[in-house]
Amino acid sequence: MDDPARRPRVVIIGGGFAGLSAARALARAPVDVLIIDRTNHHVFQPLLYQVATTALAPSDISAPIRWILRRQKNVATRLGSVQAIDRTTRTLRLAEDDAPVPYDYLVVASGARHAYFGHPEWEAVAPGLKSLEDARRIRRRILLALERAEWEADAAERDAQMTFVIVGGGPTGVELAGVLPEMCRGAFRPDFRRIDTSKVRVVLVEGGPRLLPSFPPSLSARAAHDLARLRVEVRTSTFVTDVDADGVSMGAERIAARSVFWAAGNAASALSRLLGAPLDAAGRVLARSDLSLPDDDRVFVAGDIAAMPWTEGTFVPGVAPAATQMGQRAARNIRARIAGEPTTPFRYVNTGELATIGRHMAVASLAGGRIRIAGYVAWVFWLFLHIMYLVGFRNRVSVLLQWAYNYIFYERGVRLISEAEDAVRG
Amino acid sequence: MDDPARRPRVVIIGGGFAGLSAARALARAPVDVLIIDRTNHHVFQPLLYQVATTALAPSDISAPIRWILRRQKNVATRLGSVQAIDRTTRTLRLAEDDAPVPYDYLVVASGARHAYFGHPEWEAVAPGLKSLEDARRIRRRILLALERAEWEADAAERDAQMTFVIVGGGPTGVELAGVLPEMCRGAFRPDFRRIDTSKVRVVLVEGGPRLLPSFPPSLSARAAHDLARLRVEVRTSTFVTDVDADGVSMGAERIAARSVFWAAGNAASALSRLLGAPLDAAGRVLARSDLSLPDDDRVFVAGDIAAMPWTEGTFVPGVAPAATQMGQRAARNIRARIAGEPTTPFRYVNTGELATIGRHMAVASLAGGRIRIAGYVAWVFWLFLHIMYLVGFRNRVSVLLQWAYNYIFYERGVRLISEAEDAVRG
Repeated sequence: MDDPARRPRVVIIGGGFAGLSAARALARAPVDVLIIDRTNHHVFQPLLYQVATTALAPSDISAPIRWILRRQKNVATRLGSVQAIDRTTRTLRLAEDDAPVPYDYLVVASGARHAYFGHPEWEAVAPGLKSLEDARRIRRRILLALERAEWEADAAERDAQMTFVIVGGGPTGVELAGVLPEMCRGAFRPDFRRIDTSKVRVVLVEGGPRLLPSFPPSLSARAAHDLARLRVEVRTSTFVTDVDADGVSMGAERIAARSVFWAAGNAASALSRLLGAPLDAAGRVLARSDLSLPDDDRVFVAGDIAAMPWTEGTFVPGVAPAATQMGQRAARNIRARIAGEPTTPFRYVNTGELATIGRHMAVASLAGGRIRIAGYVAWVFWLFLHIMYLVGFRNRVSVLLQWAYNYIFYERGVRLISEAEDAVRG
Repeated sequence: MDDPARRPRVVIIGGGFAGLSAARALARAPVDVLIIDRTNHHVFQPLLYQVATTALAPSDISAPIRWILRRQKNVATRLGSVQAIDRTTRTLRLAEDDAPVPYDYLVVASGARHAYFGHPEWEAVAPGLKSLEDARRIRRRILLALERAEWEADAAERDAQMTFVIVGGGPTGVELAGVLPEMCRGAFRPDFRRIDTSKVRVVLVEGGPRLLPSFPPSLSARAAHDLARLRVEVRTSTFVTDVDADGVSMGAERIAARSVFWAAGNAASALSRLLGAPLDAAGRVLARSDLSLPDDDRVFVAGDIAAMPWTEGTFVPGVAPAATQMGQRAARNIRARIAGEPTTPFRYVNTGELATIGRHMAVASLAGGRIRIAGYVAWVFWLFLHIMYLVGFRNRVSVLLQWAYNYIFYERGVRLISEAEDAVRG
């Protein structure tokens, strides 16, 4: 039995949008909160592709979790990697410490990884874009490919270095594909002597019949049109059948490319398997409508790790607003449980979807697709929204200034090839 | 024999201050320049300690070498690691390519590493501060030490996590030691719940009788006084006899410290050994007064790799202005050689030395020590000078704004623990 004199202890695993919003929604609750993350920082994932494409620095879109929550005195922050969850004793085990971490209520918000369609070996050659490390890896690949192309004597190998294949036509894939040609045409061109970086080839591959499948079809068409104007080769209804260090196969077709980036499919974080709860095919937790586990009133899930039904056979999408809403709902339901009140089912309020295309175009589907905007207006709207939601005053000012600089001077500021790991091809 | 119709080919190894200034000094010369560096970026080394202490992002103090030189059409840039120098055939070998790289004139400006006084095994536990990777490594150590201290149950281990030892009392050591206590007292304190970060212990160890040995004694005394006010423990005339993962020994005395940073002693880049030229004890090249090798009119050295005599038994110091001046002199002497004119001996013009101490103090020795300033005025002078010399408009604006933000809000923006390598102690 719980000691009634002790404040209930809520442990949140994950400092992404879901975990942070859960912590914040418990600010005035009579609980002690512990938030655990494998990294020390929250990442503003919607702008990760800008780090990958040298427009922003990693620190521009991230902030220490303990700094974000510094004024909320009932929250402690811990850097740690959860290795085991024991729902019987209500404890967690961390890789870093032998002592078990007890909880009264648990929110699992550890997010998603990429799904490689049963080919985990593709991950090593085709990095995804979920973390700052991923973004640094893609940035390094892009910059190294151009460095190598500049000094490559063999024409076929040079072309392969200057070919970028992006797998997955959702917002991340569309945004990556839209930035690459403009960046190579504008910012990079004056720096090279032997190659013409405006000649890079960018191929965007999508298995479904249209790009941005969650958007209204008219906006998908607009995105395809805008990308074609940027000379991106868009391949819809095309499945990748093999990926290796030399390129991509799509059935009989083969594209020689030294850089393949993965923006297709989500799989739940490995933690979902530790819970002993029913999972869907992507490893996401099939929770009750109030976000708790079917057989456990003390454990909630929130964000990309949760498979929550939405409309007609679809699931709530893996976007920041959905994660934020789930985190809040989980926190409120914990408060209800503690107060002995009934919990409330989670209902997703679809605020809209947005994707930029290159330098000054975007598509936006708002109010459940009833409002659709595209082009420059949508791009300005996108700018405004992302700056507004970015964590921290410093980050906002820094991002605004870098964007202004990039936009006005056609430059890209953050072109560091940082780690040695990839420095020699292989 | 050279083909008279062909422009002489000047290869510069290293994109630091010396290499860049050599390249720039050849802008109007009838030569083709190739600049080779192991990284794709120039680093503004005087501000590395600010990256290490979370005030600036790596991209704030660096810029791609090919971007810096983009308008100088007679320069090509190559990312590569020089493995061999053959002065007979006048070719280099790179790790990345089997084809030899020919030169007519060579400038070796590959800089310096830290010297661990015959204990190379100390490097793994006591990182130095020469590159962006080094700065990231120190930043990670500082942030991880505090993360661990927050959740450490054992008091002695917690104290060891909160103890920072800096070896070497030159400008880098003094600057690191001055920043740490103020950063922990100001920016970090509100973020932690269980430890009081203002209680960190910072120890600065110098083998010589005074800090900043190259400055006038009055400024050394002032630096020691200012550091003592910041509660830094300064130990002069103290030699480190052992360093391991648990701490530092200084003769009979032992300090338990999980973080030891190295700012003592320079050794020339490993490339100096490939030259087959006479070296001093630190591996630096003993060149002729015109910076060329004693037995080779075609090969010059510049920057930290060169041991150039200065006044009464001293050598030209390893500072940015000296490297810049050497790079220019080497380039001008190459132009002289090509024109069949006599070369000119290198003469170091000592513009001065500067070191900051914490938030708003500094010491400066100018005009060969004839002008000495200290305190706030010196700090403002330091600010002005560093912003002025920073490469690139974007970097200047970004650094100014981040400094303003850090100064006004007592915050530190760039607190990323990035690589996994160090994430688990060991």
